[in-house]
Order: sequence, then structure tokens, then C-alpha cells
Amino acid sequence: MSEKKLAIIVTNGTLDWGYPPFILASTAAALGYEVQIFFTFYGLQLLKKKMNVKVSPLGNPGMPMPMGMDKWFPVLGTAIPGMESMMTMMMKNKMKSKGVASLEDLRDLCVEAEVKIIACQMTVDLFDMSPADFIDGIEYGGAATFFEFAGESDITLFV
Amino acid sequence: MSEKKLAIIVTNGTLDWGYPPFILASTAAALGYEVQIFFTFYGLQLLKKKMNVKVSPLGNPGMPMPMGMDKWFPVLGTAIPGMESMMTMMMKNKMKSKGVASLEDLRDLCVEAEVKIIACQMTVDLFDMSPADFIDGIEYGGAATFFEFAGESDITLFV
Amino acid sequence: MSEKKLAIIVTNGTLDWGYPPFILASTAAALGYEVQIFFTFYGLQLLKKKMNVKVSPLGNPGMPMPMGMDKWFPVLGTAIPGMESMMTMMMKNKMKSKGVASLEDLRDLCVEAEVKIIACQMTVDLFDMSPADFIDGIEYGGAATFFEFAGESDITLFV
Repeated sequence: MSEKKLAIIVTNGTLDWGYPPFILASTAAALGYEVQIFFTFYGLQLLKKKMNVKVSPLGNPGMPMPMGMDKWFPVLGTAIPGMESMMTMMMKNKMKSKGVASLEDLRDLCVEAEVKIIACQMTVDLFDMSPADFIDGIEYGGAATFFEFAGESDITLFV
Repeated sequence: MSEKKLAIIVTNGTLDWGYPPFILASTAAALGYEVQIFFTFYGLQLLKKKMNVKVSPLGNPGMPMPMGMDKWFPVLGTAIPGMESMMTMMMKNKMKSKGVASLEDLRDLCVEAEVKIIACQMTVDLFDMSPADFIDGIEYGGAATFFEFAGESDITLFV
Repeated sequence: MSEKKLAIIVTNGTLDWGYPPFILASTAAALGYEVQIFFTFYGLQLLKKKMNVKVSPLGNPGMPMPMGMDKWFPVLGTAIPGMESMMTMMMKNKMKSKGVASLEDLRDLCVEAEVKIIACQMTVDLFDMSPADFIDGIEYGGAATFFEFAGESDITLFV
């Protein structure tokens, strides 16, 4: 039996939505899956060498606020300048204290496990992004590149 | 022919993004599908006995504002304290008046239809959530648990 | 060998999350796929003849701010009245200058390529939307309609 395949498209570029694709991809690779991730739109933020991604409490009432902050800063509080950075720091500290790997570490794990990473060329051009800012070992392609692999995959996910 | 399978990962914990997975899962179950939903990150909010989820007009310009509210409160209006609660109440009332089942009812329907519900153990630990707060009859697992079922599924969706 | 199939559910109704489904669908159709897109919840905004969708920098720290605007308007800046419209205009101009097709053009391309478009009847009823506002040639259905096609598809995506 040939190995199973997992294809993921990542369009989000936030800290919290960066975790699922890298956790899923590294787990699948560990289970013997062949994995490809296609990064497009805001998802390309996750390929930068210096990843500077944040969580956003704005527009996400599903986010649990640490330390009763929701009592202190209801709704509008999440729009206070510096709040995104503060929440991002708190989330990172929480993850560290709980032994959850950083996004960078999970990404390294994926690269080591030979997860194929493809950056959307159109988005790179659109936002005038510099390939030099991205991690090494990635490829560039378009939607057709994604379909080559996804059309043969057992699991396809849009994150 | 063996029955078809649907695997869903839910990472969102808002009222509006709670509907699609429960509607899809209950419909698929009614059509004879075997269904599993893996709840992770903010998605775990949807498993609480007392579901306290909200819609968020913030950062979602796609949300139709009822009663011309967008004229009264353009953009910044959606950040006014209490607006999320107000919009949530209005959305719930609208759904009730239109005969759309509540999220809790749809969840019950899924449980009755033997949709298998799995809570992400890592997230539970990360946010110090208490399993006692969750509905009964759910299981706990990790990404590998998800792949066991998803790898054999006909449809896989990331919500 | 029978042709491959792609099934997409679209729940988002913003300019930026409108691109992926139309790009993926038109590309897949060009590659010989049979394609169906099921539009539900906010996704129905993308079916209006006069598409009036916006990007939202709110709650999306992954969005690159053009021209160093993030230095001028950190975080709270994205909640300033008129900012969504301004960012939307800038994004549209950027895409135009880079030769990226407009959302309307990509949608036309999908219709011409015989991508089947299904509008969620429940959502139309829920938000009191008028079918007369939608483009021609679409069908109406529910979750069960989606499963008819998705259950036989090679790729299923939830956008």
C-alpha cells in the first residue's frame, strides 16, 4: 500500500492559526504521510525567517482571556494599543510554560520531516515580498501546483 | 459498499462558525455518514455545557448588520462596548424567529446521531480547561487521533 | 479515468477570503476538474451582482499594511472609521496594478467554466436576502445538496 498524503492550504498569518497546520503536518509526517503545505495570502507570514506573527483578540470572542482580563477590558479593551502584542506575549509564555513547542520549532520539525513547503508566487509578487526573507528549502508555485498533489491526497484542508 | 465518512476539525469558537460544523455533521449523520469532529483551540468553547459563544462583527465586514445598524455605527461602532453581546442576541433572535435550531440543539442532535466528538487534550491542558465543564460522552485525543479517522474519510474539512 | 472533482464550502464574505475559492475553482476547472461551490452564511455576499465586499485589517494582524501604515496607525488605527474602506481601496488598486483579476472577473471565469454554484437556501431565508440580488445561473440547496457532490469529490475544502 502506498503512503497516505496530506495537502494543506494556509491563508492565515496569525500566531494561533499558525499552530494547526504545523502541528497537523508534523504529526502526519511522523505517522508516515507524505505532506505538502501551500502558503498563500497572509499565510506567507509564517514562512518568514523572523516570524513576527501575533494572536488577535479582536473579532475573536472565542479567545479565552487570561487572568480575567475580559472583566477589566470588555470588548473595546481588545482594541487598546499594545493589546495584541501583550496578548501575544501572554499566549507565548503560556505555551512555553505548558511545554508546547514554539511555532518556529514546529516549522523546523516539518522541514526536517521533509514536509514540502510551497509559497504562492502570485502572493509574493502581489505584496512585493522578498524571497530572501523566507526560510530556506521552500518552493514557489501557483494554484495548479497545489492541485498536482492535492488531487492525489487522502486529506485536504484549508486553514 | 461501506458507509461514507466525514472528518471535521473545528478551531473556531464563535456562534457563527459554530453552526457549519454542527449542521454539516448532523446532516451527514442523517445521510448515513460516520462522522467525527475534532475540537481544538477556540473550538473547545463549543463543547462547554453552558455554551457562551458570541458572534463578532469586529473584523468581519461580511456580516450583514440588522436594521441598518451599519449606517448608525459604521466600522468603529462594532467596537462599542456591549456591541458583541447585542449582535449575538439579535442573531439568536433572528435564528429563533426563522425556525433555525439553536447551537445547543444542533449539538444534541449530533450526539444523538452518534457523531463522535473528540476534544484536543493539548488545548485542554494549555488553557487549563476543566473537562467537567464539557458535555458528556466526548473523548480526548491528539492530532494522531484525528488522523486515524481522517485518513480513511471521504470528506475532510477544517473549520 | 473519470474526471476529478473539487467541492468547496464558502462561509466568509470578505474581499480577501473571496479570492481563494474563486482562484482555486477556476484553476481546477481549467485543469479539467468538475467543480461545485456551496456558498453559505457570509459567503453569500460573494454572489451578489453588485459585490460590495471589503478586506478587514481588524482582527487580522497577519495583513501586511501598505506604505508603513502600521507605524502610523498601530492596532487601534485599524478601528478608525473609514479604515476598512481605505484598506479595501488600497488592496484593490494593488491587485489591479499587479495584474491580478478582480473578484468579479474571477467569478465570471468560474461561471464560464461551468463551475456549479449553489446558494444555501437556509441562509438566504435567515438573512432575508433577495435572490434577485444574486448573479444568474446559480442553484439553491441545503447541506444535503452539498454532500451529494462532496461525498464523491477528490478534494473538499472549507473556506
